[in-house]
Amino acid sequence: MTLRLSQHRLMGPEDLRPLNSQHDVIGVFNPGAVRFNEGAALIARVAERPCAQRPGFVGLPRYASGGELIVDWTPEAELDRSDPRVVRQRLDGRTRLTSVSHLRVFLQSDEVADRWEAGPAILPLSINEEYGIEDPRITQIDGRYWITYVAVSRHGAATALASTDDFASFERHGVIFPPENKDVVLFPRKIDGKYVALHRPTAKTDFCRPEVWLARSPDLLHWGDHEPLLAGVADWESERVGAGAPPIEVDEGWLMVYHGCGAPRRPGGVGDYCAGAALLDLADPARIVRRASEPIMRPVAEFERCGFVPNVVFPTALIDSGETFTAYYGAADTAVGAAKFSRAALFASLN
Amino acid sequence: MTLRLSQHRLMGPEDLRPLNSQHDVIGVFNPGAVRFNEGAALIARVAERPCAQRPGFVGLPRYASGGELIVDWTPEAELDRSDPRVVRQRLDGRTRLTSVSHLRVFLQSDEVADRWEAGPAILPLSINEEYGIEDPRITQIDGRYWITYVAVSRHGAATALASTDDFASFERHGVIFPPENKDVVLFPRKIDGKYVALHRPTAKTDFCRPEVWLARSPDLLHWGDHEPLLAGVADWESERVGAGAPPIEVDEGWLMVYHGCGAPRRPGGVGDYCAGAALLDLADPARIVRRASEPIMRPVAEFERCGFVPNVVFPTALIDSGETFTAYYGAADTAVGAAKFSRAALFASLN
Repeated sequence: MTLRLSQHRLMGPEDLRPLNSQHDVIGVFNPGAVRFNEGAALIARVAERPCAQRPGFVGLPRYASGGELIVDWTPEAELDRSDPRVVRQRLDGRTRLTSVSHLRVFLQSDEVADRWEAGPAILPLSINEEYGIEDPRITQIDGRYWITYVAVSRHGAATALASTDDFASFERHGVIFPPENKDVVLFPRKIDGKYVALHRPTAKTDFCRPEVWLARSPDLLHWGDHEPLLAGVADWESERVGAGAPPIEVDEGWLMVYHGCGAPRRPGGVGDYCAGAALLDLADPARIVRRASEPIMRPVAEFERCGFVPNVVFPTALIDSGETFTAYYGAADTAVGAAKFSRAALFASLN
Repeated sequence: MTLRLSQHRLMGPEDLRPLNSQHDVIGVFNPGAVRFNEGAALIARVAERPCAQRPGFVGLPRYASGGELIVDWTPEAELDRSDPRVVRQRLDGRTRLTSVSHLRVFLQSDEVADRWEAGPAILPLSINEEYGIEDPRITQIDGRYWITYVAVSRHGAATALASTDDFASFERHGVIFPPENKDVVLFPRKIDGKYVALHRPTAKTDFCRPEVWLARSPDLLHWGDHEPLLAGVADWESERVGAGAPPIEVDEGWLMVYHGCGAPRRPGGVGDYCAGAALLDLADPARIVRRASEPIMRPVAEFERCGFVPNVVFPTALIDSGETFTAYYGAADTAVGAAKFSRAALFASLN
C-alpha cells in the first residue's frame, strides 16, 4: 500500500524578498499550517544571511534590542565550520548561527491551485530572540490560533508562545519552555481538564539523547506534570527525535507525526532527517498505543536531498482531509514541501 | 570585616547506616534546611555505593521499578573514569553515576548543642528516579514545607517536587522542571500574585553555559514566564552557576546565595565550587540589584578541600538569625557543613 501519494515543493527562497537589501533569503522552511477561513494559513521560518562578504571573515547576524539587524564579523580562523547551520568559536567553544530567521505568514488564496499570498512578517523582539525565531507550529484551541516557536539567543534555544485570531496581529506570551527546548506542539483540546503539549526538553548530553516528553497546563502559559514519552529506538531515529506536527484527533487516538535523525553518513556530518508516526492513547496521551517502525517519509525527492542541509524532511504540520492527510514540512532546511499521505496506508504502517 | 565567622562539619558518612548491608554510605551532603517547631529540620542527600567488588568491573547502582537496589557490573575497560562522580560508557558515550542517592530527614533535638536526630528516609520511587534523588531544598510556603529535589534517570536529571507538614510523611508531586534542570529553589511567598522559582534549565551546551533562570507559577506545579537571571561572569563562576539556598526576604530585597564553579585546575578535572551572593529586587526578583564580585565562601577547611570531589562548598540552605546567617552546605560531596556569616559583612560584600 503506497504511503506517500505525492509531494511538491510549495515555496523556496527564490519566492521571497529579504527584509532589507543587506540580506539574502537562503531558506523558507519548517512551516506551521492550519485550516483558516475557506483555505489554510501557513507560517514559515525565513532564514536570511548578510549579502556582504569580507575575505577571511564570516558574518554572524543577530538582532539588536532595538530590532536592528547587526552582523558580527568574525575571523574565519577562529571558527570551526563543519556544520553548515552553525559555527563554533574555537576560543570559547560556543556556537553561533550562520543565518538569522524570522517568521512569515502565507494565506491560501486558491485551494485547488494551492496558491498562497504573503501576509505579515513576525520579527524577533526580545533579548531571548536575538539569534532569531524558528520552526513555528500552529494549533487551533478554543477558537484561537496558538503558535509555539523557537527563540534562539546567547541564553540557548527556548520555546515561546504567540497567539492570533486573524493571522494579521499577534500577541506574544513569552517563554513557555526554557532552554534547551525545541519541537513543542500543542494538542487541539484539553484532555482530562488540562491542556497538553509535547516537547523535547534536552539537548544531547552525556546522560541522555533527546526525547519527546509530555507536559500539562491549566492555561497554556504554565507547564508541569512532565513525563517522558518517546525516545529513538530504530537506527533512523537513534540520534535525535522531536515532535513534528501538532497531534490530530482520530477515532483510534492521537496521530503524532515526528522527526527522527540517525547517525551521520560521515564523521562530523549531519544524519538524515526522516518523519515517523505514532498513535497515542486518546484518554492518556502519555501512552503510545502503536508506532511505525519504519519512517513514513524519507528524503527522496531532489528538493529534499539537496539544499542548505542535505537529506532533511522535517514535518511541522498535518491537515486531515479524510482519505488523505497533507503534511507540510521543511525540505533540506531550504524549502517548504507539501506531501499527501493515504490515511489507510498510514494507519496500516503503525505496528 | 570578617564574612564567614565559623564553620563546622555537622555530619559525615560515618554517622549514618546504609539502607541495607550490601551498600556503603560514601557521602551525606547538599542538605535542605528550615526552621521547624522549636529547632530546625534538615533533609540531606545520602550517597551509597555497593560494598561488593569484582576485579576488572565497576558496579553501577540503580533502583528497579519495585524499589529494589540493583547493581549493573560493567567491565572497567568500557568506562572512562576521569570524574569521580560519573563514568562514561566508551561504547555509546553515555554516563552513569558511580553512586546512588536517597534523602534522609534529621530533626534538631538540641539547638544549643546543634544535635540532630535521624528521621525517615525518602527513597526513589518513579522511573524518573532510577539513578537516585539528590540535592533537596526546602521552603516554607503558606504554612507547608515544599521540597524540590533532583530526580536522575536514563531520561536525564530533572527536578521534582514533594511536600510535608511534619517531616514524617511526604506527598510527591512529580516532575516540575524537565531535564536538564537542577538547582531549583522556591521563594517563600507569592510575588505579584505568582509563586516564583529559580532554576538552572540547561546543561553546558555549545550554545551556552549554565545560567540561573527565574520562573513563575499559579500553583507551584505548573511553571512559565521563564526569564534568564544570572550567568557566571567572574573566573570563579565561569563554568557553572546554580541557585543555592531558597531566597530569604530581607529589608533590602531577596538575598540569593548560589554556587559557582570555575575552570578545572587540570584538564579533565572538576573546578572549585564556591558560594556567591546577590540581592534581587523585592518587587521584581528578575532584577539583580547588587552582587558580590568575590565568593562569600571558598573551600578552605580540610573537610571542604578533601573528599569524594575535592574543593567543593555547595550551599543549599540559609537560616536567618538576625545578626548572623547560618548556611548549610555540602562539603567535598562528602559531608554536611554549617557556617555562620556576619549579616553586616555579607551585605557589605554586595557591590
